Amino acid sequence: MALLDDLNWRYATKKYDSNKKISAEKVTKILEAARLAPSSYGLQPVRVVSISNQELKEKMVPVAWNQQIIADCSHVLVFAAWDQYTSERVNDIFDYTTSERDIPKGTAFGSRSEQVANSQIEMEAYDALQDTKRQACIAFGMAIAQAAELKVDTTPMGGFDNEDLDKLLGLDAKGLKSVYLLAMGYRNSEDDWLVNLKKVRKPMEEFVIEIN
Amino acid sequence: MALLDDLNWRYATKKYDSNKKISAEKVTKILEAARLAPSSYGLQPVRVVSISNQELKEKMVPVAWNQQIIADCSHVLVFAAWDQYTSERVNDIFDYTTSERDIPKGTAFGSRSEQVANSQIEMEAYDALQDTKRQACIAFGMAIAQAAELKVDTTPMGGFDNEDLDKLLGLDAKGLKSVYLLAMGYRNSEDDWLVNLKKVRKPMEEFVIEIN
Repeated sequence: MALLDDLNWRYATKKYDSNKKISAEKVTKILEAARLAPSSYGLQPVRVVSISNQELKEKMVPVAWNQQIIADCSHVLVFAAWDQYTSERVNDIFDYTTSERDIPKGTAFGSRSEQVANSQIEMEAYDALQDTKRQACIAFGMAIAQAAELKVDTTPMGGFDNEDLDKLLGLDAKGLKSVYLLAMGYRNSEDDWLVNLKKVRKPMEEFVIEIN
Repeated sequence: MALLDDLNWRYATKKYDSNKKISAEKVTKILEAARLAPSSYGLQPVRVVSISNQELKEKMVPVAWNQQIIADCSHVLVFAAWDQYTSERVNDIFDYTTSERDIPKGTAFGSRSEQVANSQIEMEAYDALQDTKRQACIAFGMAIAQAAELKVDTTPMGGFDNEDLDKLLGLDAKGLKSVYLLAMGYRNSEDDWLVNLKKVRKPMEEFVIEIN
């Protein structure tokens, strides 16, 4: 089915069937779509925590404003971003890139490699975090689209306490900050207030400003 | 073709064939995918400027760090986000949503509607802008995926002067801030240094932290 059909099919599921679990094969495909997302200069400052452990999901409920969705769904993906760009991180990716491409070290971006690395490392801490978080959101979009293609229901969630979640998952120690959650599973249509309501988007002529 | 195949097919095109233009039908599909992207509370704080005007694209080149891609490609999409949440904007969307769904005004999020609206409006200006920009990035991901499905080449671009571009396009007057550009068109394989290089992503075991 075409992507537009998938995007029209999906909605932010409000109630999951807690007995239905997503197959490992489908979870892997969803993670793979996120992994393939583009990022600025190919720096890939994004990681995803994939959680199906029931006990942990239940511990996450109070952190996520008591949204029961977290406990009922099959898997929760936590999209996380580097807390900052460091020389070590940037050089690690650039060296990995040149090694995988079998081109000389230091040429990941040709003659601009060093300049690119410096521009990222020298960013102010808060700006750098906002930048890495934006990369995470692109990957987040890819995961949502891939889930829809597989007819896996999702709920994109921003309603949680980032600092508490980072502590619970030990993200701080990994130099990561949580951005968004993606609850995934299969809808419980009978108890979902949103499932039969119309998908509402601003009309195209308001969404787009065309200059031809 | 499946999304994973599309994502593996695509790459950040470095050289476009300036003679090949994207059909209006395809551009519309790409914009539609962006329009269907989810957003926090359905507030849709994202707009896209779609530019095919050659004169304007050339004016954008110096703003985009002299990247000739902008002039050579067929269309440039500018993903822009609300500069802030305002009572007027939030209520406009909520009222539009309840009207489209034919449910009572003030119930876009059931009993939480007023609380949700207030939480957005009361956000600090800088935080609000980062929040709306993240929504734009989700839509950006959808557009990239849709273009790939249509075998339209794209270049996601963060390398430009946001303030200068906002001025050039008159986004300030619309209460919008540019986030990312998406150059679109058809590759010139002969002159593109990246086209034949391997797509490099960190391996799955490094990208994902699994807790089962």
